[in-house]
Amino acid sequence: MSKIILSINAGSSSVKISVYSATQGDPPKELAETQIDGLTSPPAQLKYRRNGQTIYKDKSIDDAKIHSQNDAFTYMLEQLISDPDFAAIAKKEDISIACHRVVHGGDYDSPKIIDKDCYHRLEALTDLAPLHNASALEIISFCIRDLPATRNVAVFDSQFHQSLPEHIRTYPIDLEIARKNGLRKYGFHGISYSFVTRSVAEFLGKEVKDTSLIVLHLGSGASACAVKGGKSWDTSMGLTPLAGLPGATRSGSVDPSAKFRTDGLDSLVFHYASDVGKLSPSSTKELHISRAEEILNKESGWKSLTGTTNFGTIASSPKPEMKLAFDIMVDRICHYIGSYYVSLHGKVDALVFAGGIGEKSEVLRKRVVEDCACLGFAVDGELNGRKIEDVVQDIGAQGASHRTLVCQTDEQFEMARYCAVDKELFN
Amino acid sequence: MSKIILSINAGSSSVKISVYSATQGDPPKELAETQIDGLTSPPAQLKYRRNGQTIYKDKSIDDAKIHSQNDAFTYMLEQLISDPDFAAIAKKEDISIACHRVVHGGDYDSPKIIDKDCYHRLEALTDLAPLHNASALEIISFCIRDLPATRNVAVFDSQFHQSLPEHIRTYPIDLEIARKNGLRKYGFHGISYSFVTRSVAEFLGKEVKDTSLIVLHLGSGASACAVKGGKSWDTSMGLTPLAGLPGATRSGSVDPSAKFRTDGLDSLVFHYASDVGKLSPSSTKELHISRAEEILNKESGWKSLTGTTNFGTIASSPKPEMKLAFDIMVDRICHYIGSYYVSLHGKVDALVFAGGIGEKSEVLRKRVVEDCACLGFAVDGELNGRKIEDVVQDIGAQGASHRTLVCQTDEQFEMARYCAVDKELFN
Repeated sequence: MSKIILSINAGSSSVKISVYSATQGDPPKELAETQIDGLTSPPAQLKYRRNGQTIYKDKSIDDAKIHSQNDAFTYMLEQLISDPDFAAIAKKEDISIACHRVVHGGDYDSPKIIDKDCYHRLEALTDLAPLHNASALEIISFCIRDLPATRNVAVFDSQFHQSLPEHIRTYPIDLEIARKNGLRKYGFHGISYSFVTRSVAEFLGKEVKDTSLIVLHLGSGASACAVKGGKSWDTSMGLTPLAGLPGATRSGSVDPSAKFRTDGLDSLVFHYASDVGKLSPSSTKELHISRAEEILNKESGWKSLTGTTNFGTIASSPKPEMKLAFDIMVDRICHYIGSYYVSLHGKVDALVFAGGIGEKSEVLRKRVVEDCACLGFAVDGELNGRKIEDVVQDIGAQGASHRTLVCQTDEQFEMARYCAVDKELFN
Repeated sequence: MSKIILSINAGSSSVKISVYSATQGDPPKELAETQIDGLTSPPAQLKYRRNGQTIYKDKSIDDAKIHSQNDAFTYMLEQLISDPDFAAIAKKEDISIACHRVVHGGDYDSPKIIDKDCYHRLEALTDLAPLHNASALEIISFCIRDLPATRNVAVFDSQFHQSLPEHIRTYPIDLEIARKNGLRKYGFHGISYSFVTRSVAEFLGKEVKDTSLIVLHLGSGASACAVKGGKSWDTSMGLTPLAGLPGATRSGSVDPSAKFRTDGLDSLVFHYASDVGKLSPSSTKELHISRAEEILNKESGWKSLTGTTNFGTIASSPKPEMKLAFDIMVDRICHYIGSYYVSLHGKVDALVFAGGIGEKSEVLRKRVVEDCACLGFAVDGELNGRKIEDVVQDIGAQGASHRTLVCQTDEQFEMARYCAVDKELFN
């Protein structure tokens, strides 16, 4: 029997919903996708496409009082239900499964039906990663309350990385502190890496279990992953998505001491000076986390160097600050390619670019691959310049020792797919 | 005219003094070396060697009330002066130059005579890096007061890395916060890298300016350096020595968020809860720095995983926790080798092991080089097993694409050499 699956992907300033029809065991079929962007820089913009037709492309919806991710979600849900030309969802009850992208899944190694127990664990994880899980939890909470006929499934960005070997996921810190506080490398973007690994294996005509890749997921959040025999072997993000590559507003790895000084000199002292009488242990801690996390997660990255989050602008500008941001990004990406090349002992089927920037910036791809020429990677200028239309597209030069590919990753599809292929989640 | 130079190297739990005779422009000649270890795990142990004779090997000196680095320094100074068989220093005034290893030199790009102005800048840097500069500053302060006839020179562990290109030394964070707080990659172990680069260039029969290396300085503090054309191009430590490779008690790079949680959950809350009424902005800030820095600098690393700081024990033990610590170290080292190989575009004259562990652990060297075989490095088992006796010794296999070397680094010699070759410092 065919069911309707909603894949809900709440980002830091956007929410995407994709609607699929699926029968158990088959790949889900997309019926509609809708998205609201610009939550942090109003007016919010709506995209809506269904039955192969674009209904809205970038419609301003500043009149709709959309402030939070959950506002955006309920707005789009209402629109899907009320659209007379979208028969798949005529009422709430038509939605069998709502699957939610949850960034930090702690030790979860697979998607979970959100029962009471799972919900409490998600709440605990949100305490741990407030910047990353809070909006998903708000939407989950709404769905539990307002869509009682719908099954809620959490799909975790960290689950693909549960295979990280112990010596790679362990931080060399006090074991007791580490255990008590869950301090280890978790890794993120795993839903994307799962999609990419399967798609590239298929493209190469290999079994997933025989496929080893260096994958770059480059978007406003950026990370790298070494895939060994189809599984995550290493990845650049850590305990939280802050570690590793810089992003649009994220610093990536900096000396751990820098975190304190960023925070301490900028806000902590001021706060204490003005407000010290009112301090309570927990509120101090909370404030400190949020301000420190905020600076390095939201006020850093290439936006802090250039003023723009648009990497396309950066890649094509001759201005010194743009060039600096571009060079930093290339350097840090190549850092991981070299590292993972060694970690995989040179047995690499392909270097794969994915994510908005990976898929769109031929300039970045060209420069990165040229800078890794000594490892046997090379791009074909003509192939690299083509529009990326296939799920996986070859941009490598003939005769290079290793292939170079672009993959159009699709996290929502992957989430729906998890639900469709798994009997327990689906039935 | 020949002069007596003292090279003083204050570490976290030890102080070394080497005594040289030097004429301007020539390499200094070592006359004596003395060392006190175990300051943090009494009884302190004294080593003393002069005129080619070992006087003390590991003499317990727990009766001598040696608590601080400055206690150790004055004890050894007294011993040098009072030793009737060591004629080079019969009185304080015989010491022409005392050169001090200072870990964090901020923007200094060369050794400096410590005048009033320089001393104030060193004080400011010590606020910035209290764990690393404080003991050197204490000894400098003592020498200024008690050795008025002696010129004090600061040699900085960061100065070799002033050549880091902008896109490598810049953290992608808010530029104003970065500038105001001096937040960037500085790099350390530079005195050692300077010695190694010159010595290896000479060994290879190349000009320093034509020599490109991947150097591993592996001791209880460990770092890696990409040397391009004789200059530092990248290095693994950052704003402070905390970033990069793990050390005996140092975590190395961890998710910047981990720092807060390590500190926050462990000590910050407790302190506030018990002591909140007495908080002053600066003392809070100070405490917070020290406890957080302390955990990741002094209570982490391979000691926290295994209970021992002795890497030799770890490398030869089959116990799971020892194996884990060893595997972590190998993984993180190879990470930098791969990264720097790419950053140098594969133009690498040699991979060089230095520092206590790099010079002594043939097991580690073998495993690291084997794990980097895909880059064209290979060790010769027999050569790698030999005692390291020369300043630079070849351990690479015949026919490998790149050479692999061991260098017995000598920071004290390098410090004295800076003073001897530089007219202004010497005269």
